[in-house]
Amino acid sequence: MFGIDPGLTRCGVGVVDVARDRSATLVHVGVIRSPVDAPIEARLATIAAGIREVIGLHRPHVVAVERVFAQQNRSTVMGTAQASGIALLIAAENGLSAALHTPTEVKAAITGHGGADKRQVQAMVARILRLDELPKPADAADALALAICHAWRRGVAAPASSGTLTPAQRAWAEAERVSRR
Amino acid sequence: MFGIDPGLTRCGVGVVDVARDRSATLVHVGVIRSPVDAPIEARLATIAAGIREVIGLHRPHVVAVERVFAQQNRSTVMGTAQASGIALLIAAENGLSAALHTPTEVKAAITGHGGADKRQVQAMVARILRLDELPKPADAADALALAICHAWRRGVAAPASSGTLTPAQRAWAEAERVSRR
Repeated sequence: MFGIDPGLTRCGVGVVDVARDRSATLVHVGVIRSPVDAPIEARLATIAAGIREVIGLHRPHVVAVERVFAQQNRSTVMGTAQASGIALLIAAENGLSAALHTPTEVKAAITGHGGADKRQVQAMVARILRLDELPKPADAADALALAICHAWRRGVAAPASSGTLTPAQRAWAEAERVSRR
Repeated sequence: MFGIDPGLTRCGVGVVDVARDRSATLVHVGVIRSPVDAPIEARLATIAAGIREVIGLHRPHVVAVERVFAQQNRSTVMGTAQASGIALLIAAENGLSAALHTPTEVKAAITGHGGADKRQVQAMVARILRLDELPKPADAADALALAICHAWRRGVAAPASSGTLTPAQRAWAEAERVSRR
């Protein structure tokens, strides 16, 4: 499972193996960086090369990408959207299925509440993956959280019964329901 | 000169040859469409394939892409940004130089005023390229306008003297100056 937190300056990439019992193991984590003063097309090519390298090394079957909203009125939102487009294109060109998750869905799946802050996400990702240190920077932790979220979400799709959902799964289902309105 | 008006549902593509005397000739015009109900990664792959096909057929040296702004608060703005990222990536991967122009710069270059409407741009593109009919849809005309704008802009970069600028060139220089503030 390959998670991508898209960005031009820092693009988080994380690969995890998730077992049937929902336990997750770290395979790869990193951040692809591109220089702020480079031409936009060169920056996007750097991001693309980094994503392709991870796919070539780890052969994931699925790519989970953070969904970008225009309402996030940061100056970087256009570059983030462009990087997410690159990530999705590369998934398609490698025959991988792609999924999009909102930050709220990811936080809910990982921590049990959609309003969690970056530090709480980092701490839960470290605990889930049994890491000795917090994954840094936050973009790398977010990429791992996306990958775990999507793997768990697929497991959630057909639970034995809704009574077997964990608090995090219930929070995810609620976040997903809200985002579909 | 290859102009791209990025979009997910309709991506305008236009290739023109521009001579030293600024006269322009139509080489290729079209619209790449992707189905609204297809997965986003498949739509982006369709756009990418269409852009690569134009490059393979016509071997342009430069790609001019419309600059997308987050302030354009349309629901399609994220898809447009993703498509523009794809266009810029493909330019880089083919060793082509890329340029971005705002809609205001393009309208000013083509019609002489940055507030021109779609119909005025279509009419001037038809006149510049000596076409019997207006290029349609507007996305296709915009792609041609981008290509012409960028070719002329390069010519404008080192004019014999500022006194030789046409009204359209002066409007372009003003639009560019404003956009750099």
